Amino acid sequence: MRFEVTTLGTGAALPARGRFPSAQLLNIHERLHLVDCGEGTQERLRQAEVNFNRIGTVFISHMHGDHYLGLMGLLSTMHLNGRLDELLVYGPPELREVIDVQLRASRTFLRFPLRIHVAPHENGTKLFEDPYVQVSTLRLDHRIPTTGFLFREKPHQRRLRQERLVDIPHYARNAVKCGEDLHLPDGTVVANEELTFDPLPPRSYAYCSDTAYAPELLDHIRGVDLLYHEATFTEAMAGRASETRHSTAKQAAMIARDAVVGRLLLGHFSSRYKNSTVLLEEALPIFPRTQLSNEGETFRIEPHIPVQRT
Amino acid sequence: MRFEVTTLGTGAALPARGRFPSAQLLNIHERLHLVDCGEGTQERLRQAEVNFNRIGTVFISHMHGDHYLGLMGLLSTMHLNGRLDELLVYGPPELREVIDVQLRASRTFLRFPLRIHVAPHENGTKLFEDPYVQVSTLRLDHRIPTTGFLFREKPHQRRLRQERLVDIPHYARNAVKCGEDLHLPDGTVVANEELTFDPLPPRSYAYCSDTAYAPELLDHIRGVDLLYHEATFTEAMAGRASETRHSTAKQAAMIARDAVVGRLLLGHFSSRYKNSTVLLEEALPIFPRTQLSNEGETFRIEPHIPVQRT
Repeated sequence: MRFEVTTLGTGAALPARGRFPSAQLLNIHERLHLVDCGEGTQERLRQAEVNFNRIGTVFISHMHGDHYLGLMGLLSTMHLNGRLDELLVYGPPELREVIDVQLRASRTFLRFPLRIHVAPHENGTKLFEDPYVQVSTLRLDHRIPTTGFLFREKPHQRRLRQERLVDIPHYARNAVKCGEDLHLPDGTVVANEELTFDPLPPRSYAYCSDTAYAPELLDHIRGVDLLYHEATFTEAMAGRASETRHSTAKQAAMIARDAVVGRLLLGHFSSRYKNSTVLLEEALPIFPRTQLSNEGETFRIEPHIPVQRT
Repeated sequence: MRFEVTTLGTGAALPARGRFPSAQLLNIHERLHLVDCGEGTQERLRQAEVNFNRIGTVFISHMHGDHYLGLMGLLSTMHLNGRLDELLVYGPPELREVIDVQLRASRTFLRFPLRIHVAPHENGTKLFEDPYVQVSTLRLDHRIPTTGFLFREKPHQRRLRQERLVDIPHYARNAVKCGEDLHLPDGTVVANEELTFDPLPPRSYAYCSDTAYAPELLDHIRGVDLLYHEATFTEAMAGRASETRHSTAKQAAMIARDAVVGRLLLGHFSSRYKNSTVLLEEALPIFPRTQLSNEGETFRIEPHIPVQRT
C-alpha cells in the first residue's frame, strides 16, 4: 500500500523561476493529503494529473503566504468542479478568518462541507486519523507560530505465509492476520507464527517547514522513515538563517542525524540558489542519506530500522 | 510614447492548462499599471521580465478569486524585494479587509506605503490621474459588484514642424507646443499653425471583465480605441452566460460595434474551450476588428477615428 510524498513546491518566500512555493501531496493508502498550499499549487496538482476532489485533508503549517496563498483558489476550483465531499483543513487559528472573509467577499457558498480545525502550536497533539494513518503536530520554531506534521502509519496486519494459505479457511484469515492462532473444526490448533510473518513495520513521515534549528524536536521525530526539513540557506548565511528563523542545510542534516531518521529530504530553498546542489553538498557529510526535493518528484516512504548511534 | 496592454491571463474562474486567470499589465508612457491580479500573476510578470517595483497602481475589478488572488503574493514579493515606493490599489470595498486580515495573520508590516482606495460600482468616477492618463470607473453587470476601468490618455501637445525648428528659439518651444503663436524679439508674430501640426489624438482603453451583455455601458465607452471585453461563452451557452452574468463572444462584438470602438480584444475564456478561435469566429461577423487576447502578448493601443454608423 502506498505511502509516498510528491513535492509540488520547493521554493521559499520569494518565487524563483521554476520553483513554486511550499506544497506537498501525500498518498497514504490511496487517500490524498495536501501539506501546505502556496500560490500556484492547483497548477502543480494539475501538472501532476491529480483529481482535486480526491484530496480529503489539507494541513497548513503557518500563515506566511508562501505556505497558504493557493488555498482559496483550490477551494474555489473544488466548488466550481461540483465537489460535494467534505474537506478537512487543519491550520493556524487565523486561517478560518482568512478563508471566511474571502468567501464572504466573493459571496461564495461552498457546495461541500468545509471543516476548518486549529492545529495547535505544540508537540504531539493528534489532529487526524483514518484507518491507515494518524497525524499529529510538531512545534516548529519560526517567526510566527508554525506547526509541522507527523504522519504515522497505523500498524499493519500480520502477513499470511503463501505456502500455508491452503491450510487457512477463508473465514479465519482475518483473525490469523490479527495474530490469533488457528482453531480448526476438528479441534486442531495451529500456532499463529507457523502461518504468518511479522507485519511490515508501519512507516512514518515528518514535515518540518519553516523552522530554525530546533533540537527540541528530536524526541518527537526520532526514527521517522523520512524527514522533510527546510534548508533555506547555506552555512555562509547562518546568521541570516537564525535571524529569519530558518535553517541551513547543515542544520537540517544535524537534526536528521541526531533524530536517527531513515532519510532526509531538503526543501524550501532560498531564491538566491539557482542550483540547490550547494545545499545538498553541505548536508551530505553530516547525513549521507539526504536528497533534494525536486518539484513534481515522488518519494516512496520505506520502512527503516533505526540504527542506534554508538 | 507607449500606450499598450499585455494580457497576462486570459482564463475564466476554472483554471485550464496553459491559461491563467485575469491579469493585464498596462504600460502608459513607461508607467506600469496592473489590472486584475489572479493567482499566478507574479509568475506571469516574471515570465514577461517585468520589474515588479515599476508597478505603481493596481486596479481590481471584483472579488471573485480569479481576479484578485494573486495580489497578496505580489505584495509580499514587493515587500521582500525591498520596495519602498508607494503602491496605489483601487478595488471593491471588501479588498481592504481581505488584505489587512492576511497582513495581520502573517504579521507582515509592509516596508512600502500601501494605499487602498475603493473603486465605486458606478460609471464615470475618476479614480486616478498622472501626467499621462486618467482612469475612471465603468459599472459592469456581474453576480457581485464589478467595476471596469477606462483609461484615457491626456491630450498631447502640438507637434513642431521639423522644417521650422530652426525658426523657433528654444525658450519659446513649449509655448508653441501648447498652441501659442510665436512672438519674436523684433516684434514679428508667427501664427502657431505655420509652426505645428495638430497633436496626435489621445488614446483610450476600456477594460470590461466580468460582465453580462450590458448595453447601458455604450455611452461610457463610445469610441475607445481598444475595448477589452470578456467573452466567456459561445452563443450555444447564451443561457449559461446570462445566468452567470457573463457574455458570449457575439455579445462582446455587439457592444464593440454599437460603441463604435477601434478594436476589440476578447478574453476570459471558459475552460471548456480548448481552442478559443470558436469564440473569435462568432465575434468576427459582428465586429471584424476583433482579436483574441493571447497570454503574454502585447497590444499597442493606436489612435482611432470613430466612423459614424449609417
